[in-house]
Amino acid sequence: MQFHLDGFKPGDPLIEEASGQAKTSARTDAVPEQVDVLIVGCGPAGLTLAAQLSSFAGINTRIVEQKDGPLQLGQADGIACRTMEMFEAFDFSERVLKEACWINEVTFWKPDENQSENIVRHGRVRDVEDGLSEFPHVVLNQARVHDFYLDVMRNSPRRLEPDYSRRLLDLTIEPSDTVDYPVTVRLQRIDPQHKGQVELVRARYVVGCDGAHSAVRNSIGRQIVGDSANQAWGVMDVLAVTDFPDIRLKAVIQSASEGNALIIPREGGYLARIYVELDKLKENERVTNRSITLDYVITAAQRILHPYSLEVKEVPWWSVYEIGQRICDKYDDVPEQETGSRLPRVFIAGDACHTHSPKAGQGMNFSMQDTFNLGWKLASVLRKQCVPELLHTYSAERQRVAQELIDFDREFARMFSDRPLQAADRAWEITEGVDPEEFQQYFVKHGRFTAGMGTHYRRSIICGESSHQHLAEGYPIGMRFHSAPVIRLADAMSMQLGHAGKADGRWRLYAFCDAEDPMSESCGIRMLCEFLAQARNSPVRKFTPGGQDIDAVFDVRAIFQQGHQDLALEKLPEFLLPRKGRYRLRDYEKVFCPDPTTGQDIFDLRGINRAEGCIVLVRPDQYVAHVLPLNACRSLSEFFDGFMLPQS
Amino acid sequence: MQFHLDGFKPGDPLIEEASGQAKTSARTDAVPEQVDVLIVGCGPAGLTLAAQLSSFAGINTRIVEQKDGPLQLGQADGIACRTMEMFEAFDFSERVLKEACWINEVTFWKPDENQSENIVRHGRVRDVEDGLSEFPHVVLNQARVHDFYLDVMRNSPRRLEPDYSRRLLDLTIEPSDTVDYPVTVRLQRIDPQHKGQVELVRARYVVGCDGAHSAVRNSIGRQIVGDSANQAWGVMDVLAVTDFPDIRLKAVIQSASEGNALIIPREGGYLARIYVELDKLKENERVTNRSITLDYVITAAQRILHPYSLEVKEVPWWSVYEIGQRICDKYDDVPEQETGSRLPRVFIAGDACHTHSPKAGQGMNFSMQDTFNLGWKLASVLRKQCVPELLHTYSAERQRVAQELIDFDREFARMFSDRPLQAADRAWEITEGVDPEEFQQYFVKHGRFTAGMGTHYRRSIICGESSHQHLAEGYPIGMRFHSAPVIRLADAMSMQLGHAGKADGRWRLYAFCDAEDPMSESCGIRMLCEFLAQARNSPVRKFTPGGQDIDAVFDVRAIFQQGHQDLALEKLPEFLLPRKGRYRLRDYEKVFCPDPTTGQDIFDLRGINRAEGCIVLVRPDQYVAHVLPLNACRSLSEFFDGFMLPQS
Repeated sequence: MQFHLDGFKPGDPLIEEASGQAKTSARTDAVPEQVDVLIVGCGPAGLTLAAQLSSFAGINTRIVEQKDGPLQLGQADGIACRTMEMFEAFDFSERVLKEACWINEVTFWKPDENQSENIVRHGRVRDVEDGLSEFPHVVLNQARVHDFYLDVMRNSPRRLEPDYSRRLLDLTIEPSDTVDYPVTVRLQRIDPQHKGQVELVRARYVVGCDGAHSAVRNSIGRQIVGDSANQAWGVMDVLAVTDFPDIRLKAVIQSASEGNALIIPREGGYLARIYVELDKLKENERVTNRSITLDYVITAAQRILHPYSLEVKEVPWWSVYEIGQRICDKYDDVPEQETGSRLPRVFIAGDACHTHSPKAGQGMNFSMQDTFNLGWKLASVLRKQCVPELLHTYSAERQRVAQELIDFDREFARMFSDRPLQAADRAWEITEGVDPEEFQQYFVKHGRFTAGMGTHYRRSIICGESSHQHLAEGYPIGMRFHSAPVIRLADAMSMQLGHAGKADGRWRLYAFCDAEDPMSESCGIRMLCEFLAQARNSPVRKFTPGGQDIDAVFDVRAIFQQGHQDLALEKLPEFLLPRKGRYRLRDYEKVFCPDPTTGQDIFDLRGINRAEGCIVLVRPDQYVAHVLPLNACRSLSEFFDGFMLPQS
Repeated sequence: MQFHLDGFKPGDPLIEEASGQAKTSARTDAVPEQVDVLIVGCGPAGLTLAAQLSSFAGINTRIVEQKDGPLQLGQADGIACRTMEMFEAFDFSERVLKEACWINEVTFWKPDENQSENIVRHGRVRDVEDGLSEFPHVVLNQARVHDFYLDVMRNSPRRLEPDYSRRLLDLTIEPSDTVDYPVTVRLQRIDPQHKGQVELVRARYVVGCDGAHSAVRNSIGRQIVGDSANQAWGVMDVLAVTDFPDIRLKAVIQSASEGNALIIPREGGYLARIYVELDKLKENERVTNRSITLDYVITAAQRILHPYSLEVKEVPWWSVYEIGQRICDKYDDVPEQETGSRLPRVFIAGDACHTHSPKAGQGMNFSMQDTFNLGWKLASVLRKQCVPELLHTYSAERQRVAQELIDFDREFARMFSDRPLQAADRAWEITEGVDPEEFQQYFVKHGRFTAGMGTHYRRSIICGESSHQHLAEGYPIGMRFHSAPVIRLADAMSMQLGHAGKADGRWRLYAFCDAEDPMSESCGIRMLCEFLAQARNSPVRKFTPGGQDIDAVFDVRAIFQQGHQDLALEKLPEFLLPRKGRYRLRDYEKVFCPDPTTGQDIFDLRGINRAEGCIVLVRPDQYVAHVLPLNACRSLSEFFDGFMLPQS
């Protein structure tokens, strides 16, 4: 964490200085008549976006919600490794790590071959493959994730708080792009004091994060379509006493004839979530019409767990659902055929665009990644850093990866509802069902997907072509920047390189050094620094507004191959020790060296070409935008010319 | 973290349920007329004690402070590894780790042999030897440590807040032990609204954490005595621009003729603290009489750092001081000769009892350890768990280790003020001064002391005799329990065993398994569990109040030698899966296995006898109280009989 740059400030460094607006204007309980961005819905997608936008003092963001206050008890709970990486960028990963339940191992249970009414453990694997992320897969009540985002918003320059008890009535978009605030929204207040009052809000952009029944989605005429597997499941959070030994591990259970179950341990050491397979539904039958009771779900769980007992003491939350996958074909208000001529003004995200089965644990995670993708784009357009056409990439990128997720999820969910094949079946040549071993293998094989690492954006104005991918095999363009251990040169700090990247809307340019002596004038890193600092077509010079710190738009970090005790800080290019802020103090946190204690160093781990080095460009949402040779100054310029606006 | 035991509770689990008292009685701005413990002074010692006591709903604690609010800018900054371990027990270590500056390496600078007006680096070492603690040595403004403690107090059942703007006028102690509240304190309010008002408070116990000029110390007639080295030093926190390359490392600098300096990097990436040797003082001369200016200190620093430049931009805090060590001979109100016949009622802690030079970074750390030692003792006497004679051990333990610290500190400070011996000196057979290499060696050799691990309590009613020490060589009786990596059996969680121990006033009994099959009826751990659960002289049965959870007083944890996948949870003794709380839920966090990924496992790392296993008893303040064979049931009983009170 860096602070005190512009002079010593007492107190919590996470509480940023309030913007002029936040200082002077008293907080009223009305939504202002004009806003830059109006977010509809305080779920994970809405709050991720609000937290991201609140960090920009110059952007007027508001977030409205139907409920009358913060969520106390949510249904989502799984937090994928990828999401933890994003939480780190929002500076609250350590709070989640502390409070959540870590999912370390998964066990697999099947019918006992000798006594098929009993279940027996047949497999045990790590939940996440080693090295996939520096973060674990954890489980925590969604309400607490909301709380952490609300803290980020509260501590931000805008001191953003949600406006509760508002229902969206309707939304209209002015056809012309010449209007500053083209979206008009009518909000109805639904709290007893203001019941029936209607607020009219004009916004530059509106983002619908208002769930599966999204009013924003309906208002732009989009539909969510999909299918259902006609299979009912129950889910319950329980405080229970059991002799089932894996109640604190994730356990996948296939019983011979009572159906399947999934146990997920929960935070706090006592709570567990149990997913229970219930009845097959008829074609077009809705599970809600079955009037399934909690007792029914508990009894089904008890039958599946036989011979183990399950004595349920308290059920803070339970539900029944049918498995289904639904998706919207486009995530903004611009029809496909008009993308060349019209700019998007209204977006949808999260459950408003895609719903899937809960057991892959993707709903909340994928929703947050939607708006993490959108947030920096909106901010950079509003701040006039980038061309507004950039906003087309949101739907293009996110809709496609959601489609891939849904295809995966359908197969995953199907296996969860299949009966287990047993030895007896094989003897009788019965093949309908799933082999428990195969199910386990499928589970392991698709671990990257469930960990949130399956996302791979295609080539676009913000994802370069892959002709230099061989310089950094471990950083596929379009995939998330995979952190690795390094040592910071100036203070010998062992740390994760990826944690240098915060959710601050900046681009990261990681320069991996080549094999030349870093002190020689001709070494790649020195030449690159010279270009970035001096050249007229340097993106740093061209796109950084005058008067701002040198790293305000591009955060350049160098990784050398030498050990940190073998490199002389005082001989590095000045550009890597940039002077910043009111006092022009040096920033000592731009230069890293390999961590020798970890066996393989970052060059090995990420397949960096040691002879040539390379540049890895990382977007503000942590995805790799490009891999280029150290000396590819022209390609570097051209890439950013494609979507950035020159600053004066 | 464990929560939801008595039913699901939404919200932040660190915010404990308010006690009946905190719920019903409105907070007034007056100190009540009767309290259990009155703490005087909101420094590190006072706040550690207040945070510890606030966790007990039944104890009425108040803390008063002369200042009118929380500290904004403190002078202390070094946080030793040992202190971090304690912060973990108070559940805020991760906040400190995130915000603080980590001290990773130390460099040593001496005069250039060829050009003695210049300094050159001659050595570089790890600041803390590997494996000494799972925590690093960090640096953070004392005011932030206060903030973290204030949060703990605020979230505690008592919702404790300091009473500011109070000055202690005087204190009297009733001679008889028959009075419930024998200490009478007069507090003068000094805020403008209440100026001159006097509050009369009767307390069972009073603890003076009121600094070097302690009024509490004076009121019990104790004196702090010591000597001074007649050497002036300056210290300043700076935001500065320099080409000195080690400004983000801890740097010990010996110049040829301009004196010595010590640089400590500070939190936030820009701030640094510089200690600068100034003038020799005359016998009995006070540094305050010299009228030393900030410019004088800066200029001295600049001369020492030659040939490097130092351009100071802002100085949030600076001071001058003379080196000296002072200590009080006893830390309570009972004269040495009356310890057999009288019980202590008033204690002093922190700077009120001992002051030393700041460069070893011990002031704040040692002060907090004082009251961490006292806190559980006071609580267990007030809760009638232990005999009041236990309170004698506070002064006995803490005064002695402070004396050892002061002896170390005197030598350490002397070396810091010595001139460096150079090659030329040796040629001229000059021996006055310190060899820079020797200084570095001394520094490394005493790293355990500066890390806070030098404390070793002698045998007493709460520190057993060492006849079984060979069963656990790595857990010396009287020294702090040294954590090590383990895997928790039930959820395969990699964690630190020591972090199971929180600042909750409980004793920990770590049972390390012997070589027998843990499933056999005769294995040591099974026999021990049977004894603890069933026997009439089991300390667990004897000293745990009826109606409380089985682990309310003794938190028993078992560490097996088998891998976590090789041990069947369902076959463990019931005592290790205890049922607790309103629903009698199982606690799954009592059993651990070695962590195979760390090379050496906990049995190797801590020298546990694998054939015999052992019991390691750990006090509520994290110090090892005893090491016993697994089957030493009688010794175990007798040890606790020595100071605990049987419960009904």
